[in-house]
Amino acid sequence: MPDGERTRVRRLPDRQVFDRTSLDAILDEALIAHVAYLDALPGGDEDDDIPLVLPFACARDGDTLLLHGSTGAGLLRACAAGTTISVEVTHLDALVVARSTFDHSMNYRSAVVIGVPEVVPDDEKAAALDVLVDHLLPGRSAEVRRPTRKELAATTVVRLSLATASVKVRAKGAATDPGDGEDRSVWAGILPLALVADAPVAEADVPDAVPVPPSVRAAAARE
Amino acid sequence: MPDGERTRVRRLPDRQVFDRTSLDAILDEALIAHVAYLDALPGGDEDDDIPLVLPFACARDGDTLLLHGSTGAGLLRACAAGTTISVEVTHLDALVVARSTFDHSMNYRSAVVIGVPEVVPDDEKAAALDVLVDHLLPGRSAEVRRPTRKELAATTVVRLSLATASVKVRAKGAATDPGDGEDRSVWAGILPLALVADAPVAEADVPDAVPVPPSVRAAAARE
Repeated sequence: MPDGERTRVRRLPDRQVFDRTSLDAILDEALIAHVAYLDALPGGDEDDDIPLVLPFACARDGDTLLLHGSTGAGLLRACAAGTTISVEVTHLDALVVARSTFDHSMNYRSAVVIGVPEVVPDDEKAAALDVLVDHLLPGRSAEVRRPTRKELAATTVVRLSLATASVKVRAKGAATDPGDGEDRSVWAGILPLALVADAPVAEADVPDAVPVPPSVRAAAARE
Repeated sequence: MPDGERTRVRRLPDRQVFDRTSLDAILDEALIAHVAYLDALPGGDEDDDIPLVLPFACARDGDTLLLHGSTGAGLLRACAAGTTISVEVTHLDALVVARSTFDHSMNYRSAVVIGVPEVVPDDEKAAALDVLVDHLLPGRSAEVRRPTRKELAATTVVRLSLATASVKVRAKGAATDPGDGEDRSVWAGILPLALVADAPVAEADVPDAVPVPPSVRAAAARE
């Protein structure tokens, strides 16, 4: 991963981690990614463009990150036109509770990927959608009806290279300012947080005899 | 909330909710916000600016959203220079498990706020930091040492008006394409997800006699 100007963490660089394994682990745990792109107002001037951030489902596919959505979505139209985007994924692991207002923080694992995504060609789109659904629910694509041509036509999938990326992690307890060091009567520590799954809820029209499928059971146990 | 071109949800407008109560509820539950701004490379041309998205702690304060960070952070320097940003908050409530690849989805509550933030003046900064810490852990600011002048000088707080915002919610079960309607042997439903707190973990230097404070107990019960 290049350690260039673009991906250098400017604040608290000790929290930056450069290895690809860390990046992959963060992306592989992500259910949604936060995608920023320059949004153009219809009929507006280029100077009116604003950096817009929206959530998208995502999935890592080898050395790329897949995003998908309706063919008409603004982001995907911008991608088709060739635009630089950034994608951020953050897992919040804990609130860090300190002895001073200033030292309160959060533990997190965060990745940012920057680049010009390319539109996945039509003949690779069905496979890319399998990767997206199997990322959320491993094995699910084999349990369900595959996309029709009409459904494929309504969907745009783009892939973004992971070549320019940056990872930032905080994973430790609360800092205590030396000036606050004598007074241990104030509690400090962390409040761990995690995204967890509750029991799956079947649609009303699912017969009692149809069990929760392996993909959903596995995801429920994983989250 | 103005229903202007900028905040109109272009995709699936039936998922858009306009009332301020929904916006406030989403922001008040947010621990982190995803902030997009135009990042300028040092010495680079304006055409090289890229829409960068980064995570920030946030807190709603009346009709504004507060963000804060180190005075040197790129976003906050951009805010001080007067720049348009967008801020996205998303709560992921469930994976939606359908009978076809295409109908898989997610239940979520998402808000996007767009505007030019203003820097909170020095004489209001300490109060704004109280709002930020009390948003994460209600009551915490009264339990800890307040910021010093040096700490305040190292911190920039900005506030963004909620006047231009948009809310999008999906909160329902799996869609089933009419063509898939006959075959009920494929399970469909939702896998509920939530961010939950585990038991607080004290720093090693906290005496046994010091209990977990009310702010942390309340947050642990809330999440």
